[in-house]
Amino acid sequence: MNTAFTGVIPPVVTPLTEQGELDVASFEKVINRLLTHGVDGLFILGSTSEVAFFEDDMRDHVLREAVRITAGRVPILAGVIDTETRRVMSHIRRAEHIGVDAVVATAPFYAITGPTEISNHFRALHQATELPIFAYDLPVCVHVKLPVDLLVELGREGAIAGVKDSSGDDVSFRRLVTANKAAGSPLSVLTGHEVVVDGAFMSGADGVVPGLANVDARPYVAMYKAYREGDWAAVRAEQDTAAALFEIVFAPVGVTGPAAGVGAFKTAMHLLGVIASNTMSVPTPTLTGENVKRIAAVLRRVGMLQ
Amino acid sequence: MNTAFTGVIPPVVTPLTEQGELDVASFEKVINRLLTHGVDGLFILGSTSEVAFFEDDMRDHVLREAVRITAGRVPILAGVIDTETRRVMSHIRRAEHIGVDAVVATAPFYAITGPTEISNHFRALHQATELPIFAYDLPVCVHVKLPVDLLVELGREGAIAGVKDSSGDDVSFRRLVTANKAAGSPLSVLTGHEVVVDGAFMSGADGVVPGLANVDARPYVAMYKAYREGDWAAVRAEQDTAAALFEIVFAPVGVTGPAAGVGAFKTAMHLLGVIASNTMSVPTPTLTGENVKRIAAVLRRVGMLQ
Amino acid sequence: MNTAFTGVIPPVVTPLTEQGELDVASFEKVINRLLTHGVDGLFILGSTSEVAFFEDDMRDHVLREAVRITAGRVPILAGVIDTETRRVMSHIRRAEHIGVDAVVATAPFYAITGPTEISNHFRALHQATELPIFAYDLPVCVHVKLPVDLLVELGREGAIAGVKDSSGDDVSFRRLVTANKAAGSPLSVLTGHEVVVDGAFMSGADGVVPGLANVDARPYVAMYKAYREGDWAAVRAEQDTAAALFEIVFAPVGVTGPAAGVGAFKTAMHLLGVIASNTMSVPTPTLTGENVKRIAAVLRRVGMLQ
Amino acid sequence: MNTAFTGVIPPVVTPLTEQGELDVASFEKVINRLLTHGVDGLFILGSTSEVAFFEDDMRDHVLREAVRITAGRVPILAGVIDTETRRVMSHIRRAEHIGVDAVVATAPFYAITGPTEISNHFRALHQATELPIFAYDLPVCVHVKLPVDLLVELGREGAIAGVKDSSGDDVSFRRLVTANKAAGSPLSVLTGHEVVVDGAFMSGADGVVPGLANVDARPYVAMYKAYREGDWAAVRAEQDTAAALFEIVFAPVGVTGPAAGVGAFKTAMHLLGVIASNTMSVPTPTLTGENVKRIAAVLRRVGMLQ
Repeated sequence: MNTAFTGVIPPVVTPLTEQGELDVASFEKVINRLLTHGVDGLFILGSTSEVAFFEDDMRDHVLREAVRITAGRVPILAGVIDTETRRVMSHIRRAEHIGVDAVVATAPFYAITGPTEISNHFRALHQATELPIFAYDLPVCVHVKLPVDLLVELGREGAIAGVKDSSGDDVSFRRLVTANKAAGSPLSVLTGHEVVVDGAFMSGADGVVPGLANVDARPYVAMYKAYREGDWAAVRAEQDTAAALFEIVFAPVGVTGPAAGVGAFKTAMHLLGVIASNTMSVPTPTLTGENVKRIAAVLRRVGMLQ
Repeated sequence: MNTAFTGVIPPVVTPLTEQGELDVASFEKVINRLLTHGVDGLFILGSTSEVAFFEDDMRDHVLREAVRITAGRVPILAGVIDTETRRVMSHIRRAEHIGVDAVVATAPFYAITGPTEISNHFRALHQATELPIFAYDLPVCVHVKLPVDLLVELGREGAIAGVKDSSGDDVSFRRLVTANKAAGSPLSVLTGHEVVVDGAFMSGADGVVPGLANVDARPYVAMYKAYREGDWAAVRAEQDTAAALFEIVFAPVGVTGPAAGVGAFKTAMHLLGVIASNTMSVPTPTLTGENVKRIAAVLRRVGMLQ
Repeated sequence: MNTAFTGVIPPVVTPLTEQGELDVASFEKVINRLLTHGVDGLFILGSTSEVAFFEDDMRDHVLREAVRITAGRVPILAGVIDTETRRVMSHIRRAEHIGVDAVVATAPFYAITGPTEISNHFRALHQATELPIFAYDLPVCVHVKLPVDLLVELGREGAIAGVKDSSGDDVSFRRLVTANKAAGSPLSVLTGHEVVVDGAFMSGADGVVPGLANVDARPYVAMYKAYREGDWAAVRAEQDTAAALFEIVFAPVGVTGPAAGVGAFKTAMHLLGVIASNTMSVPTPTLTGENVKRIAAVLRRVGMLQ
Repeated sequence: MNTAFTGVIPPVVTPLTEQGELDVASFEKVINRLLTHGVDGLFILGSTSEVAFFEDDMRDHVLREAVRITAGRVPILAGVIDTETRRVMSHIRRAEHIGVDAVVATAPFYAITGPTEISNHFRALHQATELPIFAYDLPVCVHVKLPVDLLVELGREGAIAGVKDSSGDDVSFRRLVTANKAAGSPLSVLTGHEVVVDGAFMSGADGVVPGLANVDARPYVAMYKAYREGDWAAVRAEQDTAAALFEIVFAPVGVTGPAAGVGAFKTAMHLLGVIASNTMSVPTPTLTGENVKRIAAVLRRVGMLQ
């Protein structure tokens, strides 16, 4: 089940012009480069895509271009990130209209929430669409951890088709994979932590959603292949390669959150000539000066830059 | 300065039909009852109004009806709550178009944020509108505390006109009032904590935004009057009256967040005949059965119900 | 009830030599100065006393000297701060042996704890001593908030005699005072927040435990007197005076926790000639250089230093 | 380096009589059973040992018996858990006197702390003892995360000899292992998360400190051996076995923290006939009734109980 949603499914960075508009030419290069590397799907309008910063029209524009560029080569998962159920439903309708293969929704946020609200939410979303829904577990943004039991229950009843786990809780992740298996594997369980994918594969993950793949998808594709073949030494070696590159995220000083994380991805992509500008969405500061040099130094250290 | 935005400015509950649509007839009763009690302004589309649950069209509808019903009798502050700067700007444009007197915006949320992002955000909002902007300090939803120094700096440069403080941090609140005074009082500083308004007045608050006023605004109006007259014994007595009523919020069992808080307001208002239904927005459960009885018991205890 | 434990009961700073030993001569000056200002009791070995940094022998030494110096002029409350029940009991036995009038204990900490553990804990402490026990609500150190209902229940059954509330939650504080009153006032409810004592008095607090009194106890004694006399304008004016002085705590840069808080008290006391050194316990850095100057500037601004 | 402190080093449960005293006979069985299974070391007086609940005399008693029973067969690491530096030093002196091979200390806790306090703390401990010191990273109890850079710096200067990482942060764990390797491997890096040891081994961990080994050490010993031999399929299979058993920790309902975790270990050990009672330290409730049955059901499911 859910065979369309396994393997390497990067959350795609949204390249912006210096005025903050979508840079379509760069977006083409980003997506085509990922597909050339052999990724299995694309997650458009996730946190890495700066979805929360975009107005509805901008979201539509990004999604429409992604669909056009991808042209059915791999499935597209669309983030439908918003505060509460009805607002999320509205994004689902727009994504359906544009034509995507699945949607990715978080628990409701802003208002304090509990398990009742979370299950009400996902069930209501499911009743509103035929698209497969992935539950996005992202406590650092949503401030609630999706409980294992609740996810498997929602999977068993068909309300959700998978989980993108960016919770940073590897114990819970393994328990989710195990409970999902015991329930007949209704869920496709994906990890969002690009530095410890080897551990997630040991736990039995169905795939990975690595933001770092925007800079280099090759090790993730190789890692997933080695995983399917049981070649754990290769899994480990590829993870070490990717982890060394991931140090770009810890290189900037004096910045926090996406300014450091997505900011480092964009800056590295700019240094590598993939995108025309490393501009971030207002109000996030764009990396400049010494921080760009620090990222370039990491790229040189791992041999991606001269 | 900002004399239009002092005193008692309740965040107005949004009455819903059982289908989740705006119940206009009940909304008229809610607003007119507040105005009869003598409130100084209305805060529409705040957390108490369930703003985060409403799609853009619903928000417009609520705001338009509020403007129509209020008909200029008091100023209207409109919540423009959304994740990041450009989305908030979009709500500001809509609110401007409908015609309000001020807007209320939180710090950016969802993405991890720091002081740079927060000041970028409020400055960008200010450049995008002529309306006075209130900074809404609500860590329980936004997961960041607005720093005193930053607020006063934004006030001094004219980027914000006031603060609605629902941070629950009374030490910080007093420091904000004091620092604001030292800066020439650029800000109107309002407290959102209806149980300790007497303390906020001792600290020098300019006003109060009491959700509980939807159930009974009288003690708040009396308290503010007594405060202006230096009659502290009356301030204290009125606060005690309001605090006894606020126990409705702690009465429900097995629910959390707005299901308990706004849910209790709506249930009490329904029991008092002010609104036709205590329906909450999806995915929040509506209070029923024993929880309604528990709220009725509090209303009887304080003499508001037979 | 508990009339011995109302009014102004400062947590007493422990002056240290540069080698980190108790500076007895300075301790005499600190205590006698407090008594001269007219405080109603002394809280020895609280957080402000750096209790958590002291070995058992050092704690005994401090307590013994405090008892000797005070010589029965006011009651002494002794902090018995430790991780779990049996360790706390051991401190209680030592304090009993030295001779104190009450003990102050937090909820158990280090291990994750719940309401069952907390009530078990206080009941076990009560069975182990005849001394009145104050529950110390200090989430910033103990990482749990003592629930209002539990405190009143423990008070009603006689397990605790009072609460020292340093939770920073003024809504909960007012509810505690109200619930205590409804239960026949078994508890003496004290606030630990020196900047908003006026609000706590509006809520009906029985007293205050102000760390800042180590620098200047006069406004607190005057405030409490005015409160008893219903002179709220005087309460407010004295609070403003104390709040201006409290800015010493926010003056240091680059330090956190007790290094800034107790560090500022000690530095001010040193600048005022009350103690011989502002030395802090290992591993806390002692304030030096520019940070001392910043504190001196506040003292000059409020007229306590030339 | 630190070759004595690699492999499987379980934190040893402290069996208690129903009166809360050390049950020496059961303790012998626990330790001898672990040694029979082939563990490489023992961690006495860790969180799993209920160290924070024990008075100093009790701690000495436990440590002395552990040293006597172990009789040099494997090295002993002793927890020296207390709030601040001088109190920790006091435990180190006691442990030195009894005769252990290393000590395990957390960051200072209770007082708010920062990087300066943490490095001051570990440096001061190092100056006070010749014993190797392990830094215990346990944010769930200590409420601070030890930063990778600080740990490696302390390792490089010889202040600490290793890290026991129970932070639950697998990204940080991998970065620690990598940074340690780059620094010449001054640290022995151990994971405390028994459910995801395979991932920690993929990251290059030097060993594991599995509380669950008190119930069954066999899979951990086998896993470590397979890891050394590069047999990742075996690593994974053994981890799955252990993970199925770990479900005992999630079986109890209505309890939290050690009541559920260590409580489940003790209850399973009692059901398996290893210890005479599953009694927990005051104020932790001991598991009874339905919760015991739920743990027995897990033991039956994995084939450890008939």
